[in-house]
Amino acid sequence: MKVLGIDPGLRVTGYACVESAGGGGAAGRVVGAGGAGGGSGAHRAGFGSALVEAGVIRLSSKSSVADRLVELERDLAEIIERQRPAVVAVEKLYAHYAHPTTAIVMGHARGVVLLQARRAGLGIVELGATEVKKSLTGNGHASKSQMQDGVKSLLGLPRRPEPADVADAIAIALCAMRRAR
Amino acid sequence: MKVLGIDPGLRVTGYACVESAGGGGAAGRVVGAGGAGGGSGAHRAGFGSALVEAGVIRLSSKSSVADRLVELERDLAEIIERQRPAVVAVEKLYAHYAHPTTAIVMGHARGVVLLQARRAGLGIVELGATEVKKSLTGNGHASKSQMQDGVKSLLGLPRRPEPADVADAIAIALCAMRRAR
Repeated sequence: MKVLGIDPGLRVTGYACVESAGGGGAAGRVVGAGGAGGGSGAHRAGFGSALVEAGVIRLSSKSSVADRLVELERDLAEIIERQRPAVVAVEKLYAHYAHPTTAIVMGHARGVVLLQARRAGLGIVELGATEVKKSLTGNGHASKSQMQDGVKSLLGLPRRPEPADVADAIAIALCAMRRAR
Repeated sequence: MKVLGIDPGLRVTGYACVESAGGGGAAGRVVGAGGAGGGSGAHRAGFGSALVEAGVIRLSSKSSVADRLVELERDLAEIIERQRPAVVAVEKLYAHYAHPTTAIVMGHARGVVLLQARRAGLGIVELGATEVKKSLTGNGHASKSQMQDGVKSLLGLPRRPEPADVADAIAIALCAMRRAR
């Protein structure tokens, strides 16, 4: 089974596709690595899952929101077509946001992600941000930097995944996979 | 020229299609009236524009957000196909929202609206909420109820459009049309 974790945004959307390693346990296997828009390639597995592909979709802040949504839809469609995940995983909405307007704009991107996942007939898993952080680092309030370190360590990467959005997407995908077991 | 005004939401999305009355001035003409999901039919014109169709798309709060977005996309596609507007008009985002989470969820619907408008090659106009209210009632801080009264009066309707989302969509469309002149 493949899970596609997505951390949606209208400037940077992180994504990561994780596959359950067929009985391979923590060793996992690398099926591929890459990423539209310059993602960080991934190296090996964590939680008994293999990281297949991870990266970011970068959207130009010079483009209108509508143009960015069209671009996001196109790039996501390519990833879904290529990886054919069974499930798309995203974080739940919180009750409070420090920057409501930014969060609403994020909501535009999240809406396009959910629309597309459902249109493609994929399952959707929503995970609490605390659950994702705790699952990866043991600390439900881990900072972005700690999340990047956690992903680096868990996957045995030579360096921290950049930007943080990729690490978040990987953490979301791994958490969803762990929960599915 | 036709303008489709939309007041997006994940429970109720108001929409209204307005056509510039070909030199007919304030009298305008009625091309049709109806509305998916039980909209309020419209009667006559305002601002030298004719109201062609107005209504609401109601989405079941029992459905998942993703399912509602798919339904919204489908219903909007039908309206766009039927009316073939040149422009879709929506309100701008504000800097502050009383209920950020509600606003983020609205952002999901707004994202689908913008995506679809741009995918269909339509123009997009974003109007400040104050501009819309002032354009219709002369008061930039008009209440929902005052907006409904304003639409009723301007269009000579026998009663106030219900729910308020329809009146808002009509006001948005009329304001965008007025601005385009």
